[in-house]
Amino acid sequence: MVEKIHAHAGKILRVNLSNGKITTEPTMRYAKNFLGGRGINQWILYKEVKPGIWPFDPANRLIFGTGVFVGTPAPTAGRLSIDSKNVYTGGIGSANSGGHFGPELKFAGYDNLVVQGRSRNPCYLWIDDDEIEVKNAEHIWGKTTWATDDLIREELGDDDIQIADIGPAGENLVRAACIVSNGARVAGRCGLGSIMGSKNLKAIAVKGTGEITVANPEKFMQLVDEFRERILSNNGMKRLMQWGTNYILEISDLSSGNPVRNFQDGYWDSKKVQKLSTGALEKYIVRRLACFACPVHCSRYLKISNGPFKGTEGEGIECTTSKDFGCKLDIDNLPAVIKAHILCNQYGLDLSNTAGVIAWAMECYEKGILKKEDLDGLELDWGNYEAVFELMKKITFREGIGDLLAEGSKRASEILGKGEKYSITIKGQELYEVLRRQKGWALGVVLSSVGGGHLRGAPQTESLRISSKEGKKFFGVSTAGDRTTYSGKAKLVIYFENLKAIADSLNLCYFATQYLSPYLPSPKDLAKLFSAATGKMMTGRELMLIGERIHNVEKAFNVREGISRKDDMPPERFFEPIKSGPGKGERLEKEKWTKTLDEYYKLRGWNVKTGLPKRSKLEGLKLGYVAKELEKLGKLA
Amino acid sequence: MVEKIHAHAGKILRVNLSNGKITTEPTMRYAKNFLGGRGINQWILYKEVKPGIWPFDPANRLIFGTGVFVGTPAPTAGRLSIDSKNVYTGGIGSANSGGHFGPELKFAGYDNLVVQGRSRNPCYLWIDDDEIEVKNAEHIWGKTTWATDDLIREELGDDDIQIADIGPAGENLVRAACIVSNGARVAGRCGLGSIMGSKNLKAIAVKGTGEITVANPEKFMQLVDEFRERILSNNGMKRLMQWGTNYILEISDLSSGNPVRNFQDGYWDSKKVQKLSTGALEKYIVRRLACFACPVHCSRYLKISNGPFKGTEGEGIECTTSKDFGCKLDIDNLPAVIKAHILCNQYGLDLSNTAGVIAWAMECYEKGILKKEDLDGLELDWGNYEAVFELMKKITFREGIGDLLAEGSKRASEILGKGEKYSITIKGQELYEVLRRQKGWALGVVLSSVGGGHLRGAPQTESLRISSKEGKKFFGVSTAGDRTTYSGKAKLVIYFENLKAIADSLNLCYFATQYLSPYLPSPKDLAKLFSAATGKMMTGRELMLIGERIHNVEKAFNVREGISRKDDMPPERFFEPIKSGPGKGERLEKEKWTKTLDEYYKLRGWNVKTGLPKRSKLEGLKLGYVAKELEKLGKLA
Repeated sequence: MVEKIHAHAGKILRVNLSNGKITTEPTMRYAKNFLGGRGINQWILYKEVKPGIWPFDPANRLIFGTGVFVGTPAPTAGRLSIDSKNVYTGGIGSANSGGHFGPELKFAGYDNLVVQGRSRNPCYLWIDDDEIEVKNAEHIWGKTTWATDDLIREELGDDDIQIADIGPAGENLVRAACIVSNGARVAGRCGLGSIMGSKNLKAIAVKGTGEITVANPEKFMQLVDEFRERILSNNGMKRLMQWGTNYILEISDLSSGNPVRNFQDGYWDSKKVQKLSTGALEKYIVRRLACFACPVHCSRYLKISNGPFKGTEGEGIECTTSKDFGCKLDIDNLPAVIKAHILCNQYGLDLSNTAGVIAWAMECYEKGILKKEDLDGLELDWGNYEAVFELMKKITFREGIGDLLAEGSKRASEILGKGEKYSITIKGQELYEVLRRQKGWALGVVLSSVGGGHLRGAPQTESLRISSKEGKKFFGVSTAGDRTTYSGKAKLVIYFENLKAIADSLNLCYFATQYLSPYLPSPKDLAKLFSAATGKMMTGRELMLIGERIHNVEKAFNVREGISRKDDMPPERFFEPIKSGPGKGERLEKEKWTKTLDEYYKLRGWNVKTGLPKRSKLEGLKLGYVAKELEKLGKLA
Repeated sequence: MVEKIHAHAGKILRVNLSNGKITTEPTMRYAKNFLGGRGINQWILYKEVKPGIWPFDPANRLIFGTGVFVGTPAPTAGRLSIDSKNVYTGGIGSANSGGHFGPELKFAGYDNLVVQGRSRNPCYLWIDDDEIEVKNAEHIWGKTTWATDDLIREELGDDDIQIADIGPAGENLVRAACIVSNGARVAGRCGLGSIMGSKNLKAIAVKGTGEITVANPEKFMQLVDEFRERILSNNGMKRLMQWGTNYILEISDLSSGNPVRNFQDGYWDSKKVQKLSTGALEKYIVRRLACFACPVHCSRYLKISNGPFKGTEGEGIECTTSKDFGCKLDIDNLPAVIKAHILCNQYGLDLSNTAGVIAWAMECYEKGILKKEDLDGLELDWGNYEAVFELMKKITFREGIGDLLAEGSKRASEILGKGEKYSITIKGQELYEVLRRQKGWALGVVLSSVGGGHLRGAPQTESLRISSKEGKKFFGVSTAGDRTTYSGKAKLVIYFENLKAIADSLNLCYFATQYLSPYLPSPKDLAKLFSAATGKMMTGRELMLIGERIHNVEKAFNVREGISRKDDMPPERFFEPIKSGPGKGERLEKEKWTKTLDEYYKLRGWNVKTGLPKRSKLEGLKLGYVAKELEKLGKLA
């Protein structure tokens, strides 16, 4: 029985599935330098997962992390960071999900959970406050994530426990496999579900009864109220409340910013967009849903009552779904897109990594590289959603062509020895974002330490078109709102990379730190909240320094694995112009890109030519250990 | 039912454990360029296992290969090549074992067997001529290799089937895990057993009823008889017949060539050597044993009838055992060494990779780096065989400290951040051979494409002290028999690398091609035998060209995975002189080593500085595909 848990000083739980050893250590050992959540996860990963330990090795770690604010009423701070080696890139893997699992883990007394080793038989982990048990999961193996939740809740006789689990995709080591909690909140990217599967770990169930205490409750609650007010009055957040994220599909189309037919174009027929629009979605919405402590309720519970998909229901869809399964595969049938979303959640497949490899297969089919007979008889025409469902099943169970597609488009094309130019990946991971119009956004996505993705350095200042005065004031970058220029974007991306490292280490929602001061909290605001929670004085500058440290650790891990500046290029496709729509003709320019990389590496204090970290920078960040190690490996600048 | 199988033109069987797909293709597709066995295995590996596919990925291949002579009466041609990605080096993995499994596979009609994917549940493969079945192995999982053999034979109701399987070590993805057939014939190095475990494949059982036919039976049998005569009259072979390989321990000590206490010295107290000598072994020998079609019978069935190890029995020991578990761990108790050998076979552990990591732990204990409390209370003094048995169990089941040691000494030391200098590894794999006195031998061992080992380029001409006249005649290297010089050794090593690539592709025993013409077959002799078997004209020169091609493919795979010339250095320990015995003072010299590498790379036609292959060389070997791919990866010289 746990009673009072200090927001800033819980424990790290470590479970070795190979030999059943269970230990704890104080979070404070790492919190000073790495804050929490993603920061601590990544540091443990760097220290313990050395080169030559591969994703599916027992010695790989799968690390779950919460953060100081998690479990408190701090709005949106109910998230969970999951970190491990990346099955796509070989570098760091990192993903983040909402829901209620993170806070529950913290109520049980654990800021972080390190899973290592590999169980001999399928198992699940049962964390009941300080009673930890590795339980047999033979009877659950093979089940969908939803059935798994039901079976475990029934077995443990408690409907209130929180569960993070994998579906059959994870069990079958499909690279696109994700980790799902609440049946719909997903840590999607980097193939973390397949790593969980490689450990024969079907699920983690948690029940926590502790209460989170903060150092200065009065001050903390005052700041929390202010924070909530700012969220509720923010325009971007209002749109999320009203429509969920799906509205972004419509907005993106206005600038030809959609990944149409595997990124071949950016503009999707407006009639098709309308069919997947927020308006069209209305009639399927049963109710609005939110993650723990979040006032926004951006999620929707959907139910299809008529037609061929009658009976399909569940939480969804995101703009990720309508872009990935909508325009990327050219499916303009909303019920089919909803169905694809639900299937992903049940199989435990990441939306983007799944749609990405299917889009590749569809383009290969279009170009005659893959033929019907290569595809177990499927006709992979754009928009053929029945074939897409069939492929999703084949990928999940590695049936027929699914066994190849389960490796992702990059490896699949390498294995086939063809179709490599249609594999739209960054560092090997399927891409979600379109990278032509917004130069800073493109830079942030491509530089992301996980292999693509807009959740790290990509600035939304461009799509918000903030004024040059605001840009100057908040980031020292007057062009922050100007999507057309590369100028200043290196500096801007660095700002967001550092900021997001903090946000993920405190486990605040992406959206809550994206729409920016004065609308939403600045680093200084976060530092104040942190100080009230922990009783330790913290400044915005200090926080950003921690963010920089975390980013440097991730960079060093990637460098150690052979990922370097050469991997910071966008796919060739984005140097070709958009073919239609308002953004027609827009593209990235190789020369400017390269120059911007120069600038980025210079500002980062890394070697401009090789991209390797410098000793001075690492030591300045108190990462002398990292410098020493990279030097030994010949990978220090 | 299979009846007649052409020695040179069977089938390649392919089993995808993920989706149960079973296919065959004609061996001739690959045989012209890659001969068979290891050659074909490695080419399939190169083509299908692209970078970023890690050892335990379902997409990794585990490939078994026989060869033209396997299943015929050609003496010693009863072996089996097993190839996959290497869990120690990340490059190629390759091992070879004797016994009867290889011929049986061929009697079933298969020259090679490609296993890919990953079964959802523990399974074993049952190859009954052309009936192939993936069978449930839940009831066998967890069992020793011996119990596995018994259970499968009982289940299939046939005592004559051949089985290759893994023990608990393989199931638990211990890097030192090997693949065992006949309970004692082991494909040991490179961690291939853990790869089999990662596929949830417990065993492969084979029954073949076909008969191998050759093109020119009369000629073939005449050559086979000559071959057998030469083996039986060869001095080295005679010693093997009389004593088994164990006599090499005694011989090595005369030149301080033993890996004493983790290679700290080369000379082991002669009293200790006597205790493990062939003379001492006599009283445990029940009978002599041989692999299929081998007249040598170098193996022994042992039984201990008295003392603390009473009842221990099984096939063993090799000089590998007495060196690895004897002098490397300073155990001078013969029954204990026999026991360690038997445990390795039952757990499915490779002798050298197991003893290597234990020797590392012992030296760390000696130096105070690992303490009793780090070692679950074990006192790891040299020679403490009870602690060694306990560690073997811990490693096999990944219990306590065993979970760390299961990663091998290199990764264990990296994870701990200490003890790295006591990790005696080549490219990450534990070393068996001492590398101080014989310069050519050392070069061959260090350059081995699998990460150490004397089964590729290491010439025995030095220990045989062949005359300069013979050296000149057979290899164009008058210094071939002179162990003291580096001169000519690059050329000599290349000769043996190419020759061994052929020998493993025909699956002849190491010993049968090591003691050299005029004593044993030259490439020309092998070519004659090949021609008689296949009806295709082949010359010695053509064979050696195939050997060179195979070696280049292996090199390219390693290069693709980032292994380069920098990894061709011996551990620092061998630049320090031997401390005692007849070899006192002997050591390798860094400057000469580097110059010899220059020479080696030049002769190989690769870039001398980087070690990368050149287009001209690859294209000359009809490996344009490889050149093209390396170029794309920026890894062509």
